[in-house]
Amino acid sequence: MFKTLEWTEAGVVLLDQRKLPTEEVYQVFGTYQEVAQAIKDMVVRGAPAIGVTAAMGIALGVKQIETADPVVFVQKFLLICDTLAATRPTAVNLFWAIERMKKVFYENFKHGDFTRLKRAVEDEALQMQQEDVELNRRMGQLGASLLPQKARVLTHCNAGALATAGYGTALGVIRAAVEQGNSLQVFADETRPFLQGARLTAWELQKDQIPVTLITDNMAGHFMKSGRIDCVIVGADRIAANGDVANKIGTYSLAVLAKENSIPFYVAAPTSTLDLNTPSGEQIPIEQRSGQEVTHIKETPIAPHGIDVANPAFDVTPNRYVTAIITERGIAKSPYDESLRKLKA
Amino acid sequence: MFKTLEWTEAGVVLLDQRKLPTEEVYQVFGTYQEVAQAIKDMVVRGAPAIGVTAAMGIALGVKQIETADPVVFVQKFLLICDTLAATRPTAVNLFWAIERMKKVFYENFKHGDFTRLKRAVEDEALQMQQEDVELNRRMGQLGASLLPQKARVLTHCNAGALATAGYGTALGVIRAAVEQGNSLQVFADETRPFLQGARLTAWELQKDQIPVTLITDNMAGHFMKSGRIDCVIVGADRIAANGDVANKIGTYSLAVLAKENSIPFYVAAPTSTLDLNTPSGEQIPIEQRSGQEVTHIKETPIAPHGIDVANPAFDVTPNRYVTAIITERGIAKSPYDESLRKLKA
Repeated sequence: MFKTLEWTEAGVVLLDQRKLPTEEVYQVFGTYQEVAQAIKDMVVRGAPAIGVTAAMGIALGVKQIETADPVVFVQKFLLICDTLAATRPTAVNLFWAIERMKKVFYENFKHGDFTRLKRAVEDEALQMQQEDVELNRRMGQLGASLLPQKARVLTHCNAGALATAGYGTALGVIRAAVEQGNSLQVFADETRPFLQGARLTAWELQKDQIPVTLITDNMAGHFMKSGRIDCVIVGADRIAANGDVANKIGTYSLAVLAKENSIPFYVAAPTSTLDLNTPSGEQIPIEQRSGQEVTHIKETPIAPHGIDVANPAFDVTPNRYVTAIITERGIAKSPYDESLRKLKA
Repeated sequence: MFKTLEWTEAGVVLLDQRKLPTEEVYQVFGTYQEVAQAIKDMVVRGAPAIGVTAAMGIALGVKQIETADPVVFVQKFLLICDTLAATRPTAVNLFWAIERMKKVFYENFKHGDFTRLKRAVEDEALQMQQEDVELNRRMGQLGASLLPQKARVLTHCNAGALATAGYGTALGVIRAAVEQGNSLQVFADETRPFLQGARLTAWELQKDQIPVTLITDNMAGHFMKSGRIDCVIVGADRIAANGDVANKIGTYSLAVLAKENSIPFYVAAPTSTLDLNTPSGEQIPIEQRSGQEVTHIKETPIAPHGIDVANPAFDVTPNRYVTAIITERGIAKSPYDESLRKLKA
């Protein structure tokens, strides 16, 4: 089995997801700056995985602070946090993880023992990693109860072990259902432009011997209309207080198509993805990425030179299209303002 | 300017659309078998272009029949027609073109003069080519009346000069509007897996200096929801008697998303695309193409080896999502059973 992310003495080790599925390469990122760049470059991606990786990046940065001056120590710590916060704007787990690291930092800073402080920060990052796997398993078990015994499940992007510290959110629900004996057939959208579905979800499920059929994003509607999809399950990068869901570009279209075809549309995400400070999806910042991701596949150009490109990495699915939100603490349904507040409390 | 297809003494010359946009290569296909293979391999694609190319393929085949025996002559002719008919199942223009060639063949066969017969068949193919450009221009002018003075238009696949003998259907409407002085901004879906939008539509519009922004297929819904699209225009491969539209995979999803966002959804196609013998979209055969188109970009694999793939090349958009069908003879609206029958009469 693969490891999406790992804390080692040499630094944070990441499975380079840009090279999958053709190469399984692990790379060491030895400084917090390198970890930040890896998140920006999508060596690692997926909201929960970004959160845990950022926590490890902070732990790594703190470990390498060499000063006895408390003020300088705090200044350096804040610079580390700011650097990691500036990597990707949409996934709220990143900011949640940074806040959690700050809390542990300040709780331990007051003792004045920097060695103990460094240890506490490292322990917190490792605990977040372990918690993430555990809560994905709980979420999976809860979510599996929503699936029929025989189900053809459509998923988008990668909300799997590669998007988390392990097991996965949307794919965690699928894994749990398979472990419980359900007979599943997964349809995986390839997820342009970064191809997380073709490269990552297909790879993960193939490794687990869960039956998967790869389709292009624009085929999903056709299969829904043809009665070949029983439900849709996706992950999330940020869920607003009213239940609007920011997730990988294309999610909104799937949700509309699911509703039009009376197919349940489920979102699986840990409560760390709930952002109750953001009232609705309209306030969620949408990352715009380089046009090169659209015009090229690796080095191969697939569009005319100099063409204008738009590349929003995420979209927002209004809550009215969401049948249920599966978290590790329970399943939320409409009205989400209420149900999500209860889960987060 | 480029030529999508051309009749020459050496055979049918086609612009190899598989090599665009990086290379503009013209290739001669010297036998009807080669022309049939070129259609199958998508050297040329687009319903009207397939129709005219097939007609030229038949003319070429007839020209090369070397027998004085009338029965053998007819047998060879029917083999030529069958070979071209077996290339691609969905676009009805192919079968329409073959029927038209058969009609001319039999009208002239009775005279017993094979030289004259060969000439008549060739003339018919050339006339179909010329007619196609003319009717696209008429269709364009009619369709342009539907567009606002300033319009942001989403299109899918390539329904341009490259999909016809020239000028285009959906892109013909866009060209005509621009010629009439409208200020247009086109959004082009890249159109996986064959990338007709990224490779062909972007290339055509860039050559014509019509502003175009390339997006991935899964972004279209996001831009509609964000109020950045005023209308959608696509071509068609076959339109059933009730107005159901078979077109490039992904069209159905766009139509649903357009309706959900109260955006007009237009289909531009010549009356040769109307198939009144097919009552509804359910009876239209959908071509399934090789999984390799999905798993590879040129030679580069983008999915795990051995993964299952589905690759339907077309989908069917039910008539209730179609705001209007633009033809060279007029604009049809619901109820389509009636309006299409009138146009075809």
